[in-house]
Amino acid sequence: MDTTPRITFFHALQSRSAGTRALLEELGADYELQLLDLKAGEQRRSQYLAINPMGKVPAIRHDGALVTEQPAVFIYLADLYPAAKLAPLLGDPLRGPYLRWLVFYGSCFEPAVTDKSMQREPAAPSTCGYGDYDTMLQTLVGQLEQGPYLLGDSFSAADVLWGTALNWTTLFKLVPELPVIRAYIDRVLARPAMQRAAAKDAELLAARAG
Amino acid sequence: MDTTPRITFFHALQSRSAGTRALLEELGADYELQLLDLKAGEQRRSQYLAINPMGKVPAIRHDGALVTEQPAVFIYLADLYPAAKLAPLLGDPLRGPYLRWLVFYGSCFEPAVTDKSMQREPAAPSTCGYGDYDTMLQTLVGQLEQGPYLLGDSFSAADVLWGTALNWTTLFKLVPELPVIRAYIDRVLARPAMQRAAAKDAELLAARAG
Repeated sequence: MDTTPRITFFHALQSRSAGTRALLEELGADYELQLLDLKAGEQRRSQYLAINPMGKVPAIRHDGALVTEQPAVFIYLADLYPAAKLAPLLGDPLRGPYLRWLVFYGSCFEPAVTDKSMQREPAAPSTCGYGDYDTMLQTLVGQLEQGPYLLGDSFSAADVLWGTALNWTTLFKLVPELPVIRAYIDRVLARPAMQRAAAKDAELLAARAG
Repeated sequence: MDTTPRITFFHALQSRSAGTRALLEELGADYELQLLDLKAGEQRRSQYLAINPMGKVPAIRHDGALVTEQPAVFIYLADLYPAAKLAPLLGDPLRGPYLRWLVFYGSCFEPAVTDKSMQREPAAPSTCGYGDYDTMLQTLVGQLEQGPYLLGDSFSAADVLWGTALNWTTLFKLVPELPVIRAYIDRVLARPAMQRAAAKDAELLAARAG
């Protein structure tokens, strides 16, 4: 019997939390979905702000604790299901690079992409902890070129996050669809669990459109 | 005999990597210092870009792997020295909140503080993964008010990062010096290892000033 306490997953369709949905499917996790309607502003109502004061998804509740911030959610969940082998274990030489690329998503990619979408001038390096968009993209592409996955031959939870993120950011033209990026997205999205996650969300979206 | 391979720590004085210096001292880690002179632009020379293409510190090299991004460096190092008890172990209910607050630093605090220092208007929530400055600060303060540490009674590596970060951001007036923030900084900085880290950096700075 699986005695792992059930995960509550706070999710919104067509949002950043699609990455976490995909990870939960990849892990074969047992989770309860709490769906928020972002267009109706449910993420900024007091009921949800009591859960995550940032008013963002994804968030998960597990074993009495709240986890927010997608890289943290990923590190937490992938370690919770070691049998799925989506996280290098403590002591594995890939553990450090794995953490690096998960955190790089939230610490560098997201703010640099926001700057890009707002057409902002980059801040001076001394002011700005995340770096400018061009350097961020060059660093990411340099890693993808070593492929096929972010950690080389080992597929990991980091690829679930980056495959999902690069898919929507290339669609929105916030990231250029370079061949190495396109091939990486296709490689990740071809996985059965990724397709299952997308299908489940598409079904909910169709039901809402009714 | 300690068989842990030695850590190489890429560090710069009076920079964000002060947090990692403090953590290494808290952990009692054996590390080799590689000091970069940011004013001389050493972080953007090819020798260092070959190590971290982002041209930023901190970075660490350990067991053949490079780890960058301060929250990733913290998660990695604190897990590497379990005897120091600065990281809740896998399975501990505080593990999730611990990861949350470390990642929150790079994913929310840093970009929001950059916006503040650049006097930028916040991006729309749908565009912006990190959220606006006021919500970020309110969320952080709400957690600190539950104190004495970010995880309640348990001091952790997250406090090493946040104590250091709040110290310099209040000095630069990027974060208001509310009583709860001031008391938290003082509580963290009073620790012998934090003072030792600061003294070691002060000594190097004095030597450079000659």
